Amino acid sequence: MSEAKGTDGQKQPTTRSRVARDLTAEEVDGVIADNFVAILATVADGQPYAVPFIYGYEDGVFYGVLSPGRKVRNIEQNPSVCVTIVQTEDTAKRWRSVVATGRASWVEGVLRLGHALNTIRRQYPGNPVRSAPGLAALKGFHMLRVDVDALTGRGTY
Amino acid sequence: MSEAKGTDGQKQPTTRSRVARDLTAEEVDGVIADNFVAILATVADGQPYAVPFIYGYEDGVFYGVLSPGRKVRNIEQNPSVCVTIVQTEDTAKRWRSVVATGRASWVEGVLRLGHALNTIRRQYPGNPVRSAPGLAALKGFHMLRVDVDALTGRGTY
Repeated sequence: MSEAKGTDGQKQPTTRSRVARDLTAEEVDGVIADNFVAILATVADGQPYAVPFIYGYEDGVFYGVLSPGRKVRNIEQNPSVCVTIVQTEDTAKRWRSVVATGRASWVEGVLRLGHALNTIRRQYPGNPVRSAPGLAALKGFHMLRVDVDALTGRGTY
Repeated sequence: MSEAKGTDGQKQPTTRSRVARDLTAEEVDGVIADNFVAILATVADGQPYAVPFIYGYEDGVFYGVLSPGRKVRNIEQNPSVCVTIVQTEDTAKRWRSVVATGRASWVEGVLRLGHALNTIRRQYPGNPVRSAPGLAALKGFHMLRVDVDALTGRGTY
């Protein structure tokens, strides 16, 4: 996850396997599509706080089901969030990461909640979309929506 | 990563595999010891920004080698950070996460840099501590030190 600059100002790898580069838009989309766990970073009073969540993604929007707690309180104080996805191979000698900054809000309404839940279920491996969205199971939870402002990717491969 | 509360106020799992609980201090230490990739969340101007890094941990302090960029600029503006470690099994049906909030600073001086580098190397699987710390390879990088203020863990197992 690091790269060095030589004295000539050109990038020089510390080891060949650690050379990082910007991912293309297609590669960023691939990392998002190939994973389903991300880190949601929130902030309150200048203190960041980041926890994992299971996400679904569609057209520039991340969805996730959040249990009550500090992350929810932080978002209600400040909707600016960051969603980070990391995939590693070979003891992290090969890695790709995607960082999305955006605005969080809560999904409300039966139709929108059903769509969000289906988006999460589509992303989750081995869990096919069911016709019944099971919205009753969401009672007491917040359905997160993150509208992405900026999306970048880095990686060694 | 979520749990539901029944109408009687007691916690009711949405599915048995998703019941989350607080980890014990020993379990938190285990998650830290068993992993070597974490997410570093920083903040500037109310916008969180989180990226992966390879860490070493010893006695309430995380170490990591950071390449230049937004994370470094954020820390120089606000040293409050969050370090998050996630481990998942069985398509994330089983998961544990550790969240550490703390203060970031830069390690300086040959002896302290050597100690930090060895701490990271000890943590990294299959990479034994070498007698030569290779400090020259750190040129152009920042050696991060995070002094942990609060450390919590959650998990389904």
